[in-house]
Amino acid sequence: MSHISSGVEYGLHCLLYLTEPSDGAPEASVRDLAELQGVPADYVAKLFTKLHKAGLVIATEGAKGGVALARPASEISVLDVVIAIDGDKPLFECKEIRGRCAVFGESVPGWATSGVCSIHAVMQQADKRMRESLAAQSLADLSSRVTAKAPRTHGPQVVKWLKGRSANRRRDRGASADAE
Amino acid sequence: MSHISSGVEYGLHCLLYLTEPSDGAPEASVRDLAELQGVPADYVAKLFTKLHKAGLVIATEGAKGGVALARPASEISVLDVVIAIDGDKPLFECKEIRGRCAVFGESVPGWATSGVCSIHAVMQQADKRMRESLAAQSLADLSSRVTAKAPRTHGPQVVKWLKGRSANRRRDRGASADAE
Repeated sequence: MSHISSGVEYGLHCLLYLTEPSDGAPEASVRDLAELQGVPADYVAKLFTKLHKAGLVIATEGAKGGVALARPASEISVLDVVIAIDGDKPLFECKEIRGRCAVFGESVPGWATSGVCSIHAVMQQADKRMRESLAAQSLADLSSRVTAKAPRTHGPQVVKWLKGRSANRRRDRGASADAE
Repeated sequence: MSHISSGVEYGLHCLLYLTEPSDGAPEASVRDLAELQGVPADYVAKLFTKLHKAGLVIATEGAKGGVALARPASEISVLDVVIAIDGDKPLFECKEIRGRCAVFGESVPGWATSGVCSIHAVMQQADKRMRESLAAQSLADLSSRVTAKAPRTHGPQVVKWLKGRSANRRRDRGASADAE
């Protein structure tokens, strides 16, 4: 598995659909977002549980209820999403082998294990550079690049698809209420 | 497992012992380097096979034979060692889910999958920053920081330990030749 998982890819693709003003479209449900992208709904539901716990999304109530970003897309970074879904994993975990040098015998001198191991420090610096790069990109930045690539007709097509899904859900609810 | 493995940590610690002029000490064998650091010799041998394949170390011949850096320590970066041992792994592997959008149906338009996915591009940028950081640090840089931390007596202690190992090997070889 890569350091940054496919879950992050799926999560980001879903979140990008929540960055745009919905133009009167119903807010998308997690199931809608999953099916819109051909990704298993159960899997996406687990991702949204993590995104919700991290405070990045909220559930909206009412007939048009679904999920929404908890704050503006410009204030949610790619790093926020990576940490929410994959956890706050370091690039490297130091095993502190520097204290095992055979010349120390049973008594490891203080200098050998004081501070951060020089090798660990190099890895921490690389980890920091990676995080800075991910933190510098917001969902709004990503969304503007994705939108610039798509023809103008694509957004309305997605809204139409989501409206269709929402209408079906209301019809289904009505039918099951009639049956009761 | 972390993105950068413990094998890299072990490999770097071993290589640091090869960065210093040996002051008349025998060149270390892979087994010496492993035991000097309390790390399993078989495991370190596998790491050195990888380092050798990547052209970072050479085997030296003769009675004092062992392993040595294939080029100056200032010309071997931490990134070289990471790639030699862990392989050239990307931080993120794009599953290209952008082409699966339900509104496309069976015919995915060209614009949807042309060029690099915007999400993938963000991950590639972070990967690049991480690699630049690791490439900017050489074994010589690392060694000078490790040496600065240790008291002056430590280097000679390590040389003495390695000389003892080498003398034992010669004695063992002599004994087994006598026995034949």
